[in-house]
Amino acid sequence: MSDQVKIAVDCMGGDDDASFVIPGLSLSLKKYQGTKFQLFGDEKIIKSRISKYKEVAAVSEIIHCDTFVKMDEKPSTAVKNGRGKSSIWLAIEALKQGNVDFMISAGNTGALMAMSTLILKTISKIQRPAIAAIWPTIDGETIVLDIGATMGFNKKQLTDFSILGASMAQVILDVDQPTLSLLNIGEEEIKGLDEIKAAHEILKSTQHFFKYKGFIEGNQIGRGYSDVVVTDGFTGNVALKTAEGTAGQISKYFKDSIDSSIMAKLGFFLASGAFRSLKEKMNPSRLNGGVFLGLNGVVIKSHGKTDPVGFSSAIDLGIDMHKASLIDKIKNNIEVTEKEVDID
Amino acid sequence: MSDQVKIAVDCMGGDDDASFVIPGLSLSLKKYQGTKFQLFGDEKIIKSRISKYKEVAAVSEIIHCDTFVKMDEKPSTAVKNGRGKSSIWLAIEALKQGNVDFMISAGNTGALMAMSTLILKTISKIQRPAIAAIWPTIDGETIVLDIGATMGFNKKQLTDFSILGASMAQVILDVDQPTLSLLNIGEEEIKGLDEIKAAHEILKSTQHFFKYKGFIEGNQIGRGYSDVVVTDGFTGNVALKTAEGTAGQISKYFKDSIDSSIMAKLGFFLASGAFRSLKEKMNPSRLNGGVFLGLNGVVIKSHGKTDPVGFSSAIDLGIDMHKASLIDKIKNNIEVTEKEVDID
Repeated sequence: MSDQVKIAVDCMGGDDDASFVIPGLSLSLKKYQGTKFQLFGDEKIIKSRISKYKEVAAVSEIIHCDTFVKMDEKPSTAVKNGRGKSSIWLAIEALKQGNVDFMISAGNTGALMAMSTLILKTISKIQRPAIAAIWPTIDGETIVLDIGATMGFNKKQLTDFSILGASMAQVILDVDQPTLSLLNIGEEEIKGLDEIKAAHEILKSTQHFFKYKGFIEGNQIGRGYSDVVVTDGFTGNVALKTAEGTAGQISKYFKDSIDSSIMAKLGFFLASGAFRSLKEKMNPSRLNGGVFLGLNGVVIKSHGKTDPVGFSSAIDLGIDMHKASLIDKIKNNIEVTEKEVDID
Repeated sequence: MSDQVKIAVDCMGGDDDASFVIPGLSLSLKKYQGTKFQLFGDEKIIKSRISKYKEVAAVSEIIHCDTFVKMDEKPSTAVKNGRGKSSIWLAIEALKQGNVDFMISAGNTGALMAMSTLILKTISKIQRPAIAAIWPTIDGETIVLDIGATMGFNKKQLTDFSILGASMAQVILDVDQPTLSLLNIGEEEIKGLDEIKAAHEILKSTQHFFKYKGFIEGNQIGRGYSDVVVTDGFTGNVALKTAEGTAGQISKYFKDSIDSSIMAKLGFFLASGAFRSLKEKMNPSRLNGGVFLGLNGVVIKSHGKTDPVGFSSAIDLGIDMHKASLIDKIKNNIEVTEKEVDID
């Protein structure tokens, strides 16, 4: 593998007209010299934006696309209108053809997932794709999946997601045997759903390349109890968004208490160094980027509402996955697991 | 209705041997003079604890129970072993007989729900009970249900929960026409589950005694977008626990940054007044207590890990529900809704 990473970039997807994309590439280029880009989108827009970033222009090829997917377009409509010509479609095609090492977009999640699945197909033995997020914990990070691709509980899919998430953890968290839990509700409650219980039986039945720790509750995710937390796309999405909402709510309380008196303002001024580190820990752009798992290719979904730093950190994720040959690792881990467990 | 409220109290359920129960009753008695208690549990234990609280003893009747439900007991085992004799069972029986106005326990949630449903039965036309929680928001409170009684999405149940939750909001939030949303995942994602969509169609089809605002995402709960948020017991439980976990995680970051330097410590000392109000807002005992909805009687579930203040605030909730005749209000709201929508 060459050290020069090639990336297909959708330049049209994201809030604020995706204005953060080119500046984000500039930041990534400082971190990873020798990176090359294929930029997909409206040639005029890209050219006008890239003019201020000559270093990015020097390593980029612009591929003009006549159309692009709107942020609020239905996935089915986006596929109908964008097949073979939208910036997302053509960027994924470039990945499929082997012209690039991975693809990134901050665009419409549903459309990106629908097109990725159509073009790249799921890896053999994997029923459905998942989106994995990196969740900040008290002393590190946890991979949570699925956060929005596949709705409803299904024991086969939960087992697939376990293999996918644990493979990603080997790369991102750099652990040989990641720990893994299934998200469920408390011991003292009327216990969870049948398919989760069935997945639990499969996962605990034998040794895997990961260490299965059983059920976990929502409040344990942020404690870093496991390297990987597996659930369905509906529950994972609600959990992630609820955590984001709670963090935002506490920030608001916090700002209100700073503003409450002069003494408070003085105190916060003196403690400002400590606050910077607190703010950094709660900064969403530090851990931006969902990874589409289970497809024959690495597709990174940046948050639509991000900034150049956030978009660049999503690129970091893609580079890590590519350099560690994530797809080969997943295929190998499926083979290993199949010898131990009947996952069909 | 007499002003003297009578409460059946399970004195055995809760962490720390439920030692917070009697002190909690003492606090409630200061707020609501004239309240009377029926105390269910081991007579010896109750008598030794109540000796320090003569004012509680003076208005209490102790009903000795030979057995009590353990915190980790399976609901089915608890019912088998505790039928007709455990403190939870007998306290609910007292409610059923009309000897008290409501029942409260900090014990095993699953067992409390199983016994309540067996003894009290669901209100006519309501298929399954729900547990409602009061969720603190940026500028108030939102009622979220179900948080753990009924698993899986079902359009009839989601419609029932809407009636139940909105009735509770009329009492607790003191609004005539509460706003209500269904928890779902983002517009831009591949959309939610079929049963949620079906409930959405039912809820938006006509006018109700509440105002239906459509779908809501996890991050909007804490913003106070709606007075009531409806979901199934699995998702609601995960969301609530995840929010609790995130709040705990941020508290930890916060403590770490206070400890990071002398300057930070001094700053935090000066701002300590502001912090007290912040801490108060994040204090879980301020809004303790889940309400079992949909049954023929008011049952309050206090958090098992609470303190006298928390237990007393759970009692406040029961008193509010009783004084506003919640059960009659629900029955009336079911009748009104039935005229508008086919909820069967």
